[in-house]
Amino acid sequence: MSGPARRNGGAGGAATAVERITLKHGAGGGAMRQLVEETLAAGFLDERDGEVGLAAMDDGAAFRLPDGRWLVLTTDSHVIHPVRFPGGDIGRLAVAGTVNDLAMMGAAEPLGLTSSVIAEEGLAREELERIQASMRETCREAGTRIVTGDTKVMGRGEIDGVVINTTGVGFAEPLVRDAGLRPGDRIILTGDIGDHGIALMALRHELDLRGDLVSDVAPINGLVARALAAAGGGITALKDPTRGGVASALHEMAEKAGVSVVIEERAVPVSDVVRSAAEMLGLDPFHIANEGKAVVGVRPESAEAVLEAIREHPAGGRAAIVGEVAAEHPGRVVLDTGIGRRLVTEPQGEPLPRIC
Amino acid sequence: MSGPARRNGGAGGAATAVERITLKHGAGGGAMRQLVEETLAAGFLDERDGEVGLAAMDDGAAFRLPDGRWLVLTTDSHVIHPVRFPGGDIGRLAVAGTVNDLAMMGAAEPLGLTSSVIAEEGLAREELERIQASMRETCREAGTRIVTGDTKVMGRGEIDGVVINTTGVGFAEPLVRDAGLRPGDRIILTGDIGDHGIALMALRHELDLRGDLVSDVAPINGLVARALAAAGGGITALKDPTRGGVASALHEMAEKAGVSVVIEERAVPVSDVVRSAAEMLGLDPFHIANEGKAVVGVRPESAEAVLEAIREHPAGGRAAIVGEVAAEHPGRVVLDTGIGRRLVTEPQGEPLPRIC
Repeated sequence: MSGPARRNGGAGGAATAVERITLKHGAGGGAMRQLVEETLAAGFLDERDGEVGLAAMDDGAAFRLPDGRWLVLTTDSHVIHPVRFPGGDIGRLAVAGTVNDLAMMGAAEPLGLTSSVIAEEGLAREELERIQASMRETCREAGTRIVTGDTKVMGRGEIDGVVINTTGVGFAEPLVRDAGLRPGDRIILTGDIGDHGIALMALRHELDLRGDLVSDVAPINGLVARALAAAGGGITALKDPTRGGVASALHEMAEKAGVSVVIEERAVPVSDVVRSAAEMLGLDPFHIANEGKAVVGVRPESAEAVLEAIREHPAGGRAAIVGEVAAEHPGRVVLDTGIGRRLVTEPQGEPLPRIC
Repeated sequence: MSGPARRNGGAGGAATAVERITLKHGAGGGAMRQLVEETLAAGFLDERDGEVGLAAMDDGAAFRLPDGRWLVLTTDSHVIHPVRFPGGDIGRLAVAGTVNDLAMMGAAEPLGLTSSVIAEEGLAREELERIQASMRETCREAGTRIVTGDTKVMGRGEIDGVVINTTGVGFAEPLVRDAGLRPGDRIILTGDIGDHGIALMALRHELDLRGDLVSDVAPINGLVARALAAAGGGITALKDPTRGGVASALHEMAEKAGVSVVIEERAVPVSDVVRSAAEMLGLDPFHIANEGKAVVGVRPESAEAVLEAIREHPAGGRAAIVGEVAAEHPGRVVLDTGIGRRLVTEPQGEPLPRIC
């Protein structure tokens, strides 16, 4: 075990203490990234020609094919609690999450998805049927299918309800990376931020909030396809701001590309209900998970055309150009508030466990 | 909900009773197949040109590529308990299971695997590191890599220890199906049967058995590659006899192909320790899970060459031609005991939960 791993472990100071996995290791932020790099990806972190693998820490992997296209592969296990929430359920989340991860690498027409279900003994079969109907409907919406799967049952108390892994494959041409930002690029957000995380938090904490708090969970591959077509090669980077929110996504994009990003606060789309709920909870909407949004990096000359194409899509009506990429201060994400500038902090992770 | 679903449900007779998922729905046999067909695969059971999808209920899915090759995709979630057992651990099982499922469709050189880990809060980090080292070592053995992944943490008591989903992709040329048996084909078993299931059972029931009871868990893509090369197109079907054992695999193969299979009991390789342990437990080795074996269907003229090639592989020393395919009585699996013939029953599933 390496020094840094022990230093940052969750189980206190003594050198002999057993280091244990904590909820923050699954929260999508710095703690998780460190665990992955030091443990789960160890031995697979070399870069290979014609392969985007674990070293890239992108939304998925990619393999260059002889015909020039890239085969994209992405996986996620979904542990959301509760399985049904305003705006969706675990089935919709699983399909949309995987479809969107493929799209973030430029594979906007998925070839197919796998679905691996682990159910707790005693789960009502009707619940499984509802979840399956939701997966079917979301696949239809995304223009894809479940092509293979796996079914496991664990005993009562061995797993809480149901967990679903979805893995997807698709072809990208060109491949889009989360590391491709260049100075001068514009940053587009495809819609209101924070909806999924705040909707889940309100449900879990039984908050009585005015207005409709609904998750944004949706497959947005159609929106991404339009953006790619309108960009004529001008899209430089894509990332979906899930766990850790837009702040985490922007930090990762800026660090990987060795650039900074300046966001104009007043341009960022946030609904009133999310804004007030976040204030009430003492949270920053930039740190909250989304499940149907993308952060898009685009060359300045293509920015207006891409924005227009996104806005024409039903899921993109609230899209906006929210910032710009600069060469200085690599890795920084800066918020221009209109009366000054401050750094956007990188969250350690999502504040709520089992958000996705 | 359909009539048959309710009729065969686990929760008793009343029409109004809530049907619940039971352990047998995850046991790999008839109950699971019915749940999958009626619920989890519903809406995706149409056959498409150039696609092997859920309708095939094969070891994975496949897509025909423009260059004539097939892209194979297969997924499994691993819930084995305990995570370490004689001969392996959950990491080795996950990698070998996915590599072998790819190989069973003719993709003996995996392009890469995904690894999606769900850990329980409080799991020792060292345990995760041991599992990861085992995945790395098994990948090396199989000539493949983990190329992308996902990490989730569930709270204490929300999941028992650690669960790992692995999904794999590879190219097959030609594609091999589990449905391809033809009358006259020979059936080869690549080695001793029942080792994995009996080793787990002995461990879980704390049986004191003489001899070494060790799981056979191993990637056998190298063995399959040799067999395919030696067969010159003569391999008609492949299946790995995991949950439900060789009996389940043979039943599925016979039913799908509309043929019968006659197995010569004395030719079936079973180790002495597994034979006596199975007797003690009142179990049939044909019903017990394997994790490093294949059932191979091969044209009669290629059978000896394929057997020889398999035996030259370190994992294939005990391989044997154990039976023959016939046209009459489609779906039947018959055991020739030397003094008579009896039907091999299809198990409802694996007798032990969380075997893989």
